[in-house]
Amino acid sequence: MLQRLASVAVGIGDDAAVLDGGMVLASDMLVEGVHFDRSRLEAHAIGSRAAAANLSDMAAMGAEPVCMVAALGLPEGYGDAEQLAAGIASHGVPLVGGDLSRCGELVISIAALGRADPPVRRSGGRAGDVLWVTGRLGAQAVSGFTAPVVPRLAEGRALARVATAMIDLSDGIATDAGRLAEASGCGVLVELDRLPLAAGADVRQAAAGGEDYELLAALPPGVPPPVPMTEVGRLTEEGGARLVDGSGAAVELSGWDHFA
Amino acid sequence: MLQRLASVAVGIGDDAAVLDGGMVLASDMLVEGVHFDRSRLEAHAIGSRAAAANLSDMAAMGAEPVCMVAALGLPEGYGDAEQLAAGIASHGVPLVGGDLSRCGELVISIAALGRADPPVRRSGGRAGDVLWVTGRLGAQAVSGFTAPVVPRLAEGRALARVATAMIDLSDGIATDAGRLAEASGCGVLVELDRLPLAAGADVRQAAAGGEDYELLAALPPGVPPPVPMTEVGRLTEEGGARLVDGSGAAVELSGWDHFA
Repeated sequence: MLQRLASVAVGIGDDAAVLDGGMVLASDMLVEGVHFDRSRLEAHAIGSRAAAANLSDMAAMGAEPVCMVAALGLPEGYGDAEQLAAGIASHGVPLVGGDLSRCGELVISIAALGRADPPVRRSGGRAGDVLWVTGRLGAQAVSGFTAPVVPRLAEGRALARVATAMIDLSDGIATDAGRLAEASGCGVLVELDRLPLAAGADVRQAAAGGEDYELLAALPPGVPPPVPMTEVGRLTEEGGARLVDGSGAAVELSGWDHFA
Repeated sequence: MLQRLASVAVGIGDDAAVLDGGMVLASDMLVEGVHFDRSRLEAHAIGSRAAAANLSDMAAMGAEPVCMVAALGLPEGYGDAEQLAAGIASHGVPLVGGDLSRCGELVISIAALGRADPPVRRSGGRAGDVLWVTGRLGAQAVSGFTAPVVPRLAEGRALARVATAMIDLSDGIATDAGRLAEASGCGVLVELDRLPLAAGADVRQAAAGGEDYELLAALPPGVPPPVPMTEVGRLTEEGGARLVDGSGAAVELSGWDHFA
């Protein structure tokens, strides 16, 4: 459905739309009961998480965020809007405007504007490029999606100088590596045994748990990443995404689909 | 609540946030059951309306919209997302990106980026400035909020050269004139007998029905508006908003509050 909609009007494909002059614009919506559980997260944490998801899109473009606007849908009698807004603003990116509406569920929609010189797209990868990932994977799944999210903004900007393609891991590397490869017109091989596991995480949580918001970057062979990263695979000539175990045998996994 | 939230982080005050270089960024959210009734409006019309509300904020800043991003919350099994997106894109402003999520109600959140040289704020009005309004008022209330909305973009850009302050009439002049005056540190007098009534509309619908998205501009005395407009009142020294009838007697009305 996302793909079909994209063909009509909404440009999916990259983490943010690239405008003239190196400006990038990203939009994300978090919905209660789909992306978070109000009984398990404080309002400040929900706001922080919503902004982090959006700023992670900026990071994936190698962009420096300039500002955000937030549209909030608030259930009748909701009393934590100030904490929510404070959480959104907690990453140090100015929240410059917004809109409020009543809504059945708590809905947080954030748009972020950033600058990148140049923006890194998903589509610049070439067969043979090495795939690297920041941080450790699976921490969100282990925490029940309540652990704080820190968008990899500094890493994204550093990687922008060398990466041929980049994406943030919102749905899990099992899904997102395929997206990067498809946009680049390549295949992809991800070696599950190489994934940097977060404490307590198993391979399935690391590969498909989602919402880790680490960066996955494609670098030309022989080019070292400018920030600490783990090599996890490579782009290939043949199409499709392959996940392999230590013996090279194919493993079937899929990402965590918010829409499923 | 809007005002209290504003003091924390979300800059209300203007129709859009003004950024460096004359860029403006606006965000609006439309929620099923609050802003529209899915049984009375086709998906294309809902999308068109959502974008128009946002582009009207651009118009009120005297800005030329550059692009939009849309985050859509779609109820389980919703099948009209393509029509919705086509409606959003129907005003000729590129829809460059977006996000989709499942949601209990249909929610449309749009952020628009524009350029203005210079942007017109709500706060530049001075006592003695004459208030002018575009078009006719009350058509939306008469139609049950189903009439097409055409954002006054060309009028907004023309007015930017002469207006001291401007706002779009989203909630009705009874409310929005007070907002412009308050932001400008003035009072305001609106002469209800002067309001240009839409066909079939009464004064209450014209003044407080809301969602007409006409522009209300303050112009220095003696300066004619550059587009067809109707004179409806003036900014005053004394604070507060006063609505008066033909005899000069005060009339009590209030705007249509989405949040009430």
